[in-house]
Amino acid sequence: MELLKEYIRKYGVVRPGNILKVDSFLNHQMDIALLNRIGEEFKNIFADKKITKILTIEASGIGIACIVAQYFNVPVVFAKKSESLNLDGDLYTSKCFSFTKNREYTALVSKKYILPDDNILLIDDFLANGRAMLALIDIVNQSKAKIAGAGIVIEKGFQEGGKLVRDAGVQLESLVVIDSMSDSDLVFRE
Amino acid sequence: MELLKEYIRKYGVVRPGNILKVDSFLNHQMDIALLNRIGEEFKNIFADKKITKILTIEASGIGIACIVAQYFNVPVVFAKKSESLNLDGDLYTSKCFSFTKNREYTALVSKKYILPDDNILLIDDFLANGRAMLALIDIVNQSKAKIAGAGIVIEKGFQEGGKLVRDAGVQLESLVVIDSMSDSDLVFRE
Repeated sequence: MELLKEYIRKYGVVRPGNILKVDSFLNHQMDIALLNRIGEEFKNIFADKKITKILTIEASGIGIACIVAQYFNVPVVFAKKSESLNLDGDLYTSKCFSFTKNREYTALVSKKYILPDDNILLIDDFLANGRAMLALIDIVNQSKAKIAGAGIVIEKGFQEGGKLVRDAGVQLESLVVIDSMSDSDLVFRE
Repeated sequence: MELLKEYIRKYGVVRPGNILKVDSFLNHQMDIALLNRIGEEFKNIFADKKITKILTIEASGIGIACIVAQYFNVPVVFAKKSESLNLDGDLYTSKCFSFTKNREYTALVSKKYILPDDNILLIDDFLANGRAMLALIDIVNQSKAKIAGAGIVIEKGFQEGGKLVRDAGVQLESLVVIDSMSDSDLVFRE
């Protein structure tokens, strides 16, 4: 997606430790016009799938998922991290390690909101080590629903998440794949 | 907002401890068509304000804020809770106690994304004790930006948040105010 590459080149900041900061438009401040273009793009990619629901995980996936959902006319469900006193006991859960925050958490989704006849599109902002996406895949598999695919805005192609998600049998579509990063250079996969 | 009252009567569940669960349409599964009606409503209410940005707090405020933002053509910024290794050091912070999760956290917003000439609309799903909203107000006040108002989807009118926010000099607009709750009854303010 050329527009997204332009945004990353123009507004993205590379930090030591393979960190790409895109918090000016994607995951702290959010450019809603760009999110709408992202929604159109995912709709084009998954046009032939009868998506019934979008599943994402808090926090930065939620805004993207809600805008994308408008192109599919479906509800969004977001997995919560760790326990919340307001959640039902009847939950799908999956343990997950966050390399960004360097801690383990549990992804939680109420069993009421993913049903066996659902056809789920998974959405998230980043795919790096892939642990959050694997937790979502695990949760959908527990529910017996189908996974139509996974839509990622930015994939770090030099980390293992992409391989892990594809090995899980999921159609992974990343709008931008970054093959390598350094202070002076950012290489996108063609 | 009548449609919202209908949703709450039809799909909301009252739990002991004054908990109103609306996770089938607002803050776990999200009904995007309803969020669009909410966006229209806030646009009508704040039509005469020149909003430049919407500020919310993770997690459940984000999806609502992103849909609402489409009616104002402005970006969304969401405050993060606690420390994230991917965030800059240059942050506005405000300590905040969550009664839902029974723990203290710090709300964080990068100084880059709230500027003195911004006119901020605060958005959140619930207002109960008001601590999250007060943290957002504190952060905007630190930035010297203006607060155009606060838009809340559901206010628990029998808790102190509404008074605290109004006492802070902020125009508070709640689409629905609940005056009392019990297993058998839910009383909306007229």
